[in-house]
Amino acid sequence: MVGHGAVGQRVKRLDSPPKLTGQERYTADLKIPGLLYARPVGSAYAHARILGIDTSAALAIPGVVAVLAADDLPLARDANGQPVKTPLAAGEALYAGQFVALVLAESDAAAQDGVAAVEVEYEPLPAVVTLDQALDPAAPPVRETRGQSGDEEASMHNADAARSAVEEAEDLPPNVSNTVNFHRGDIAAGFAAADVVVEHTFESQAIHQGYIETQTCLVDVDPLGRLTVYTSTQAAFYCRQRVAEAVGRPVQDVEVVPMPVGGGFGGKFVLIEPLVAAAALAAGRPVLLQFARMDDLLAGNPAPNCRIQVKLGATRDGILTALQANLVFSTGASSGSPLQIAAVLLGGYYRVPHLEIRGREALANKPGAGAYRAPGAQQASFAIESAMDELARELKLDPLDLRLANCVVEGDPRPNGAAWPRIGLKETLEALRDHPAWQNRAQARAAGRGVGVAVGGWPGGVEPATAVCRLDSNGRMTIVLGSVDLTGTNTTFAQIAAETFGMQAEEVTVTTASTDSAPFAGGSGGSKITYTVGPAVKQAAEDARQQILNVAAQQLEAAPEDLEIVDGAVKVRGVPGAGVSLKKIADLTMGVTGRHAPIYGTGSSAILESAPGFAVHLAEVEVDDVTGETRVVRYVAAQDVGYAINPATVEAQIHGGVAQGIGWALYEGLTYDADGQLLTATLMDYALPKAHMIPPIETMLVEAPSKYGAYGSKGVGEPPAIPGAATIANAIRDATGARMTSIPIKPEALARALWRQAASAD
Amino acid sequence: MVGHGAVGQRVKRLDSPPKLTGQERYTADLKIPGLLYARPVGSAYAHARILGIDTSAALAIPGVVAVLAADDLPLARDANGQPVKTPLAAGEALYAGQFVALVLAESDAAAQDGVAAVEVEYEPLPAVVTLDQALDPAAPPVRETRGQSGDEEASMHNADAARSAVEEAEDLPPNVSNTVNFHRGDIAAGFAAADVVVEHTFESQAIHQGYIETQTCLVDVDPLGRLTVYTSTQAAFYCRQRVAEAVGRPVQDVEVVPMPVGGGFGGKFVLIEPLVAAAALAAGRPVLLQFARMDDLLAGNPAPNCRIQVKLGATRDGILTALQANLVFSTGASSGSPLQIAAVLLGGYYRVPHLEIRGREALANKPGAGAYRAPGAQQASFAIESAMDELARELKLDPLDLRLANCVVEGDPRPNGAAWPRIGLKETLEALRDHPAWQNRAQARAAGRGVGVAVGGWPGGVEPATAVCRLDSNGRMTIVLGSVDLTGTNTTFAQIAAETFGMQAEEVTVTTASTDSAPFAGGSGGSKITYTVGPAVKQAAEDARQQILNVAAQQLEAAPEDLEIVDGAVKVRGVPGAGVSLKKIADLTMGVTGRHAPIYGTGSSAILESAPGFAVHLAEVEVDDVTGETRVVRYVAAQDVGYAINPATVEAQIHGGVAQGIGWALYEGLTYDADGQLLTATLMDYALPKAHMIPPIETMLVEAPSKYGAYGSKGVGEPPAIPGAATIANAIRDATGARMTSIPIKPEALARALWRQAASAD
Repeated sequence: MVGHGAVGQRVKRLDSPPKLTGQERYTADLKIPGLLYARPVGSAYAHARILGIDTSAALAIPGVVAVLAADDLPLARDANGQPVKTPLAAGEALYAGQFVALVLAESDAAAQDGVAAVEVEYEPLPAVVTLDQALDPAAPPVRETRGQSGDEEASMHNADAARSAVEEAEDLPPNVSNTVNFHRGDIAAGFAAADVVVEHTFESQAIHQGYIETQTCLVDVDPLGRLTVYTSTQAAFYCRQRVAEAVGRPVQDVEVVPMPVGGGFGGKFVLIEPLVAAAALAAGRPVLLQFARMDDLLAGNPAPNCRIQVKLGATRDGILTALQANLVFSTGASSGSPLQIAAVLLGGYYRVPHLEIRGREALANKPGAGAYRAPGAQQASFAIESAMDELARELKLDPLDLRLANCVVEGDPRPNGAAWPRIGLKETLEALRDHPAWQNRAQARAAGRGVGVAVGGWPGGVEPATAVCRLDSNGRMTIVLGSVDLTGTNTTFAQIAAETFGMQAEEVTVTTASTDSAPFAGGSGGSKITYTVGPAVKQAAEDARQQILNVAAQQLEAAPEDLEIVDGAVKVRGVPGAGVSLKKIADLTMGVTGRHAPIYGTGSSAILESAPGFAVHLAEVEVDDVTGETRVVRYVAAQDVGYAINPATVEAQIHGGVAQGIGWALYEGLTYDADGQLLTATLMDYALPKAHMIPPIETMLVEAPSKYGAYGSKGVGEPPAIPGAATIANAIRDATGARMTSIPIKPEALARALWRQAASAD
Repeated sequence: MVGHGAVGQRVKRLDSPPKLTGQERYTADLKIPGLLYARPVGSAYAHARILGIDTSAALAIPGVVAVLAADDLPLARDANGQPVKTPLAAGEALYAGQFVALVLAESDAAAQDGVAAVEVEYEPLPAVVTLDQALDPAAPPVRETRGQSGDEEASMHNADAARSAVEEAEDLPPNVSNTVNFHRGDIAAGFAAADVVVEHTFESQAIHQGYIETQTCLVDVDPLGRLTVYTSTQAAFYCRQRVAEAVGRPVQDVEVVPMPVGGGFGGKFVLIEPLVAAAALAAGRPVLLQFARMDDLLAGNPAPNCRIQVKLGATRDGILTALQANLVFSTGASSGSPLQIAAVLLGGYYRVPHLEIRGREALANKPGAGAYRAPGAQQASFAIESAMDELARELKLDPLDLRLANCVVEGDPRPNGAAWPRIGLKETLEALRDHPAWQNRAQARAAGRGVGVAVGGWPGGVEPATAVCRLDSNGRMTIVLGSVDLTGTNTTFAQIAAETFGMQAEEVTVTTASTDSAPFAGGSGGSKITYTVGPAVKQAAEDARQQILNVAAQQLEAAPEDLEIVDGAVKVRGVPGAGVSLKKIADLTMGVTGRHAPIYGTGSSAILESAPGFAVHLAEVEVDDVTGETRVVRYVAAQDVGYAINPATVEAQIHGGVAQGIGWALYEGLTYDADGQLLTATLMDYALPKAHMIPPIETMLVEAPSKYGAYGSKGVGEPPAIPGAATIANAIRDATGARMTSIPIKPEALARALWRQAASAD
């Protein structure tokens, strides 16, 4: 590998200067003349019929231009006359805070005043809030009107979601919206063969993605109704499609301009864009909707809460014989939870001959479930990895050895029957086992601390993509893409192209174009952008390079295969001299008298096999046995990253994932009261981890190359966010003896458990 | 040809709806928050040293933010310390109205007040105004400071400009900035062999392009100094290059967003963009400069005035033996007049064994010469075609027969030695000869009218180009280009793509992307866009079509060559049934589980041989012998268009060209007094032709296919604007006997000529 500061090098993110200097312009920084500010009127009830909306007082407020309800929006209707993918409650509010109307005003202040003045007449209906209520065959329906499915988006995050599970005829409670069932072998025989069986039930709260920039979208409309959607979406083309469907126009009438994303983590595929587009069309003016933090907590698309029961059987020498699990995911008011991927991963990390997994997705009067970085994986891993820890304790085996003895390798089946491709789980377990933090864990224990480990795996995603590599007039290269850079992927792509041209990454410009002209790429989610767009970029760069060499060959009267690109010029290998500069190639291909076609390389990928990634984490914790407060004092994250094109951004991904995992483990949770009212509607109540709660993080990059990724790379975004909860729960168990089965593990709960434990020991 | 309303059909321009309903948004319609309005301070003198600029009174006006002189602008400097391509007078004003300073203000009104309050101290210098002054060896220099060349842009309009003429050592007057000399055979021998010789001297005034939308540019600047240039340029990539050079930044820091152009005609390549960019950088805020009409007339880039002396010799039976010509073009304060192309065309329409053409370009204290639709060709054709008319009269030959006997055909040399490729001049002359307006001209004469004909030719232009053809999610196609649509070319490209897919043109979207992501294309000038980008579009569409067929072949289990696209679906030829819809192909290539790469066709062209186009016009005129007023009552325009992909837009081009030619012939002219002050600085004084001055125009499309254009098409924009002046002068000669040798032919001049003629006849 050439390594001119290109692939394999630690390259600073090319988008750092505007971000570090506070000069990046986000969607809410756009101020278009004639702009209307939108503020939502949220439902007061978790479930209610909307009998009427009195807008007269609001409209009397100076500056308020319109108060729009669902019927006021130019939304496409389906065969039943229902708006397609309605973004506003239409006749029925399904959760507390769901938008009932949108106030448009000349100023944000007037819009807020308008919201306060809108009078909505409700007829409250019984609300379904808890999982038990949702599964109750006698429960009232979560919605009276016909609902919508959100399955489409769930499948964008991982390849496995698209594979169907076993279809079974079942008699289901009315609010169950989806099921999944996987079987392998004979589960009764599996447990009969076991010497040891452990069984636990785990609960995870609903979690918000916690991005800094709230949901924000600005839609401009031209006099002919063509829409320009400025939004911090993770998925420009998908957003274009959804907006076009919602307003019933061809996609060519919708331009999505992907703006810098101030944190997405799966929560910013499409949420408010169809609503804002419809509002702009209704008003005939540009409209900006920027969520207040409370809007985002009330009416975002959080990770769903769930309950997972796991039963594991193993022989005395630590070989798994049976795995039985029941998963229940609360999906909020619309279907689309990551139930299936959770089920696949829960049963997918370890070889087990007999397996039975049953999953239920149940509706509730809460906001619809969305994706959060490794959707379903965190919850599944918390369950299976806590259970594995208990199993090791029962068997008195080293928990890493137990995992190594059972972990899947290439060719082993997942619950859905699909074989794992080449994966790095085993190598990653081995790497962590050799780390001093694990080898010397006795010292930590001697100091009263506990050490825990856990595995997290992610199937990876695929989606076709095209990339362009263009030579510019000054001899530098531009990569044009349709993908959104969430995590530094554009820097990675600059490195891939730079490698091809013997340049520095800084000499390559990477542009994400709007959907009007961009080559197609899928959404930035599911750890798939580097894996799928990377090969397209590499191919595009190689195509452009070959075009350059062909032009230079004529200039230099040499064969293209004898040429190389060095220091911005094409030279004959082994022949000293100036060669032909890339600037000159630009003149020859784009000058008025240019004799050659412009250099315009293209590359595409349509990878069918995803590249799963595994992380194995270790946490060392200290628990205050009076307050129950847990402090994470050391953290080691080993991960199979395939190949680290930019170790700096890969490590940054791991750092962020670990921090989020600590949030899942110890702090975060959207909690609702019995009426379905959110109790954690501000960041005073919803506890995001703060910097001082995050310990130094040691990273270990394991490189088990993927088959299709550029240079063997694979997606690295999801895995580091997965094992955190189980890792910390296992460390707490190690430190205190208490097995915590519900996350977040709040101090009061842990203190209570320690008190109970002490009481029973007395 | 399939002809689904695709190529060869009269298709309404796809950009008509916003333009016809007044809803198009031009550059000046953009209002960016924080926008500063710029107004220029123009020089009071045609030539002066600038001793000082007192901005204090201007800066005291509320709303005035800055008054910028050249030294205040962050312009790149050359090795001499001079600003590169300085957009503001730096120390020395070179023409009356040249910008000396730019006032930036919060409102346009404040900017205007600011301009009035700026005090400039000048030291007047002698001004060079007329051609005679400019050629005088004893004249003072037009500029004291080092000048700049504008040659680069001149070469963008035609392929011939890039070929070098004969280099000769000459002792030149100080203000001569360029020369051209062509020789063939023995000129003395040529005239010795002639039975008849005619000799005349022709003058053409400077002409403004007369676009409706004045020069307008808005530049936004981000906090890191990256520039977004919104401008009605004809040439986005060239503009990007020039702005980047001017401000000394890499082209990657400049995004040019090509806006709808409200008329360009060659005058909107790059004029004010570097100045506005520098002002935006200096102010750190977005800046809009919109020319007032007077700014545009004073400080635009008009077609230069010139004087052309032509001497023609022929045998008694009408075979040309010799052509001698002297051309003098006034290029204003900067070099870059279309002298060379004028010389090539003047000696290029007819076979002549002995030829001598000498050309001089001379500086003057007037605005720098720019391009105007067929730059140089109108002036050259006025001269040669008037002379040919006189020659026919001397020889008592039919003027069309004389032209047919001598006109060039494929293989004949141009003055610069380059052979003409396949051209349609002869066929076009024949077509016009057969038209009733020519056949029955005796009737017109009997009614006291005159009938004249003349030829106009244009070499055409070339420049490499790339195009993209993308399949969208709804099964429709998008073409992505870097070229600007001035004249309906995007509609033409939609037809080309539609033809490939068996669609209607309306089902294809054509997008001109910004320079950040667009495939390269040259400027929209020189009649080259359809000719050069068209084949790239066709190739891109064919590439996309093949990709589609390859995907469909796998779905249909058929060979791609057995497939066809009909009604939006791929079908097996001759097999009834649904086939695979393009929508389904989109799903298979862009869906989450897509098994194939996205459909992304590319095509490029790097045509080396331009496709010259010829027009032959006929005018029937009526002259009021008292007032000298000329009325054009009938007009026939025959033109070789190669192949009319969209006859409607081709005819519209001819209509516009004829109207402009009538303006050249009878009305327009920028005239300066002895001090170099413009006398025609408003549209009250500068006479653009009005609708009632334009007769019905009959068009005859001759189709002599080009070798490289899509479907044999060639550029059609320039030729119809060329023959107007000579055609009408020849008709006036026919009606009155007066040979008018100076355009515009104003009534007072014609009346004077008629009076003299009558006096001499008495």
